This record gives sequence, C-alpha cells and structure tokens, in this order.
Amino acid sequence: MRTIDWDEDSAAVRLIDQTRLPIDYEVLYCERVDELIAAIKELKVRGAPALGVAGALGVVLACKTATSKDEFERSIEQLKKSRPTAVNLFYGIERAYRAAKRGATRDERERLALAEAKKLIEEDITVNRRIGDYGSELLEDGDVVLTHCNAGRLACVDWGTALGVIRTAVLRGKHIEVIACETRPLNQGSRLTTWELMQDKIPVTLITDSMSAVVMRAGMVNRVIVGADRIVKDGVINKIGTYMHAILAREHGIPFYVAAPTSSFDLEHSCEEIEIEERSPREIIYCGNTQIAPANVRVYNPAFDFTPFELIEAIITEKGIFRRPFKRI
Amino acid sequence: MRTIDWDEDSAAVRLIDQTRLPIDYEVLYCERVDELIAAIKELKVRGAPALGVAGALGVVLACKTATSKDEFERSIEQLKKSRPTAVNLFYGIERAYRAAKRGATRDERERLALAEAKKLIEEDITVNRRIGDYGSELLEDGDVVLTHCNAGRLACVDWGTALGVIRTAVLRGKHIEVIACETRPLNQGSRLTTWELMQDKIPVTLITDSMSAVVMRAGMVNRVIVGADRIVKDGVINKIGTYMHAILAREHGIPFYVAAPTSSFDLEHSCEEIEIEERSPREIIYCGNTQIAPANVRVYNPAFDFTPFELIEAIITEKGIFRRPFKRI
Repeated sequence: MRTIDWDEDSAAVRLIDQTRLPIDYEVLYCERVDELIAAIKELKVRGAPALGVAGALGVVLACKTATSKDEFERSIEQLKKSRPTAVNLFYGIERAYRAAKRGATRDERERLALAEAKKLIEEDITVNRRIGDYGSELLEDGDVVLTHCNAGRLACVDWGTALGVIRTAVLRGKHIEVIACETRPLNQGSRLTTWELMQDKIPVTLITDSMSAVVMRAGMVNRVIVGADRIVKDGVINKIGTYMHAILAREHGIPFYVAAPTSSFDLEHSCEEIEIEERSPREIIYCGNTQIAPANVRVYNPAFDFTPFELIEAIITEKGIFRRPFKRI
Repeated sequence: MRTIDWDEDSAAVRLIDQTRLPIDYEVLYCERVDELIAAIKELKVRGAPALGVAGALGVVLACKTATSKDEFERSIEQLKKSRPTAVNLFYGIERAYRAAKRGATRDERERLALAEAKKLIEEDITVNRRIGDYGSELLEDGDVVLTHCNAGRLACVDWGTALGVIRTAVLRGKHIEVIACETRPLNQGSRLTTWELMQDKIPVTLITDSMSAVVMRAGMVNRVIVGADRIVKDGVINKIGTYMHAILAREHGIPFYVAAPTSSFDLEHSCEEIEIEERSPREIIYCGNTQIAPANVRVYNPAFDFTPFELIEAIITEKGIFRRPFKRI
C-alpha cells in the first residue's frame, strides 16, 4: 500500500498511521483538512516527499470543506503552518493551490487540485525510482550502509529516497546490508526503517544513534545514506543527528550521501534563514508512555540539524548525482 | 544518602535502586551475595566507582553467606562475572578478598572484609572530593559543560567524578550550567544526571545524544566532562557515545575532559584486550515497557566504547590533572 494516497471511495486522504508502527499497522482516513493538519502535526504522516503529497491533498480537502473563500485561505495558511522545515510541504501546497485557483466553481477547484495532487503522487513514485537508479550505482555488492531516521517508502508515496537507493541496488542483485540508527527522540529508525527493510527481507541491524562512530571505527559500515528535509544553498537540513553522522563519517573516511528529490531543494535560502522546528519536551521526557526523565526538566529539542556541503560526498537526485564541490546544482 | 553503603542494623548492603529513578526513589537491601550480583547485573547499582564498592561489599556478603570455602570462591567468581568492563569492580573485590584471606575464621574474614570495604567507601568519598578540587580549576564562571551518562553521585558513593567537578566549581561560587545527554539505551543521562543536578539546583538541560554536535556548533557548550569505566594504556573505555562526543568536541574546538579515580586505571592492558560488554537487544527494542522496534529485529548493543588519548585534553584524578600527551601516568 502507498504511504499516502487519495481514496476515491471515501473522497478522503488515506494514509498509514506511522505513529503506530511497528506495533500496529493502521490506516487513517482524513475527510477534512483539519484532520489532515492534525495528522501532519502528530507525525502520523512524515518525511519530506510524503509531506509534499500531504500538502497537495490538503488543498483538495480545503476545497472540499471550506464554505467560503476566507475559510479556504485560512485552511491553506494552517496547512502551511503544520510543519515549518520541510520545503516539500510548501511545494505541494503551492502546486495544488495554483491549480485550484484556475477553477471557477468549488467543484472545479477541487477537481483541478485533485488532478494536480495525483500528478504529484505519480511524480513522487517516478522520482524515487530514478533516485534509486542513479544512487544504486554508488553501492557495491557487499556494502553495509548506515542510515538515520526513515528516508524510505514510509517517508514518500512509495520506494523511498535513501532506502530506495538500497532497494534498487538489491533489486539489481547486489547484497546490501543496512545499519539503522534508532533516531531519537521519535525513533523513526527503530520503528519505521527496520520495519520497512524487514518487510523486504533486506538485512538490517538496529543501533542507538550514539553507536555510529563505533560501527564506523570497527569497519562495520562503508557508506552512509540519508534523506533531506530541505537542501539550501549552503547545505542540507535533515533529521537531528545527521550533522553528527556526517562529521563521524568524514573522520572515519566513509562516504556520506544524501538522497532527495529536487523538490527538496530551496537554493534561494541559506541555513540561517530556515526555521528549525523545535518540538515538545515531552518527546524526550517520555518514550511512549514510559517516563524517562524528571517531568519538569528543561529540554532542548530541535527536530532537524544542518550539514554543510563540505561534509557531503554526493547528493543523489532524480536528475542525477551531484558531487562535491556543489558549485551550482 | 549514600548511593551504596553497609547497613549495620540489617547487616546488608544498602543501595539506591537506580533503575527506578527519577520516578521512584527506592532503597534496596541485599543480605545475600546473589541478591547483590543480581542488582549489579540489572544496573540497580552502576558506575565504575560504585561498582568498586559493590565488589568489596559483595565479598563481605560472600563471607557471611558461604557455608564452605568452595561456595565462597564460587561466589567471588560470580561476583567478578557480574559486569565485565569496569575495572573498579575487580579492584574492589580484590581488596576485600585479600583482606578476608587474612582471617582464620568466617567471622574474622567477614570482619576484615567489611573493614576493608568501609575503608574503600571512605576513600571513594575523599577521592571524589579531590577530583572535584583539581577539576574545578578547569572550569570558569559561566561555563556550560556537556556530559554523557551519569558520572555523578549516583555512580559513586557520593559527590561524583564528572559531576563532582561541577559540584565543586559551583560550591566555589562559579555559575556552571550542564547539558546532559540522555545516554541511550538506558537513559542514565535523562534519568539520573538530570535528577541529581536538579536536586542540587544546578541548571541542567536535557538533549538526545544526537544533539551534541548541534549544541557544540551553536556555541551552547564550552567544555565536555565524562567519567570512565576503565582507563587503559591507549585510551579511555566509557559509556557508549563517549567516543562520538570526543570526536565532535575536537571538531568544534571544545576541550574534552575525563574525570576518574586512579582505581579506574588499568595500564597493563590496551583497549583490544578488554571485553566490551554487549547487553540484551531488549534494551534497544523496548524503552521501559514501550516497544519501539520490531520484536525480532537484529540489534548491536555494546555498553561501552573506546576513546583514544589523542581526543582527550586532560584526565582529572585525585592525584592531579594529567594532560595530553599522556606519556606515562
């Protein structure tokens, strides 16, 4: 099943609830834009490419549910505010919004937005396959790839970016193993990446984020591939921990790759200009329902970090592989 | 209350159950050596200096409970096997064992072992205070210190090594703040370090281990101090994550210090000769009772890592500060 899609029967956005994996596989239907906004905020759908699709489908729902132009515009604003960092969300919203604007009636606007969203969905799948085609050339038979967070099928509509590269390499007969970093605080690595890869029978070993230096030093890994939430003119914004892995990879002479669609590029801005989402202290004080820190402790919880280009060996996109120095992409 | 001590009234080892903090403050009494061994294995008592005391007190319990010489020796062997990495455990066992050996009767052996264990307890407190005296000179008013795991009061009998340095600096009127890394997978940072420091009203901010590079880059921290489980001839063995923080500190020009008693030194061995404890996959698949990964995922879970001397600026001991290059300590 696709991670996120339009469900014709119920005229709703259908998505895999990623907060329940790997314990429960639950499918969520959002019929109203506010339901989808809540799902985005709660990370029931996450990952830059999937957020692009969620943004576009959100516009469809806004067309469907808004009873006035004002309400429609307010919904779009709220949709834009649901997550601040991944550029794909704004890209998806923008595309469907522009399409909708061309309609004269509410039905027409909804139809046009939906057509654009569906186009984006198909593009996402194609783009991911192309990223896989290009990126798999960087992997050799026997490679062990370390990855952080989830840049897989569950971060996109299907296939995945970083994990898509691995899937394509495996499809082409290469034996590839993966070391998945758990990715604190929300454990997208332990919950989602392991689950995805185990479903595909790709060998995966789970470690804590703090173990990456040790597996690198021990020669247990020879490539790092991660996704991207936004690629700006001076580097890559991605899940907190990415910057650390990039430094450690360089220290141990291991190539560090980023796999992302060009829709994640925002070359108008530099990292200082991007709002890095700070999330609730609760994410670190609790793990699920288990309290692991004093309830009133002060917490710093940025969701993303910035990795400068000099730490990145190559960026794998659907348009090809860009290698350092990234003069002009 | 002391983290671990001998309780005269009940003729038992009394310890704070560290697996229950910060939610519950529970005191555990071990009357038999097998109870203490279980407590060590389950990390109810942990931290290299505290394990030294636990080892010595374990010999006292072995004297008390063994009904034959063979049983006594078997208990000592089991005690030695309870944790493989921290050298202090063997040091504490050895000291009390040698003392016990001088006794002719069981009562005498118990009395001699207890006297030695009590000496070790008092020494531990004195040694920690001295480490604080020396180390606090390295801290300036206004410093923010990043620490990993718990090298505090709860890792010793009292005061602490890395946190002892901070406590002494604060006692001398310096304003010091702490950034505590949560320390996956068992969260000694989020559970114990934050709790200890909040009790003492020392400002502390909790982060995930993957955020240390980010706070370093942002200039939010200007010193790193950690403890040590064993200092060998080529570097320091300490909680998994230490090596990563040391690389990141060097990358960002931040001094990296280790605070440890000389009883943690084992200069006869190099890191390759030391058994690094691998712990249960369950520690990473579950967080408390919350499952955060597929139940059958493959896991790599070393409890410690190795940091070569070249990444360490200074080692703070009760005998003074040793600075790089550590020609002969």
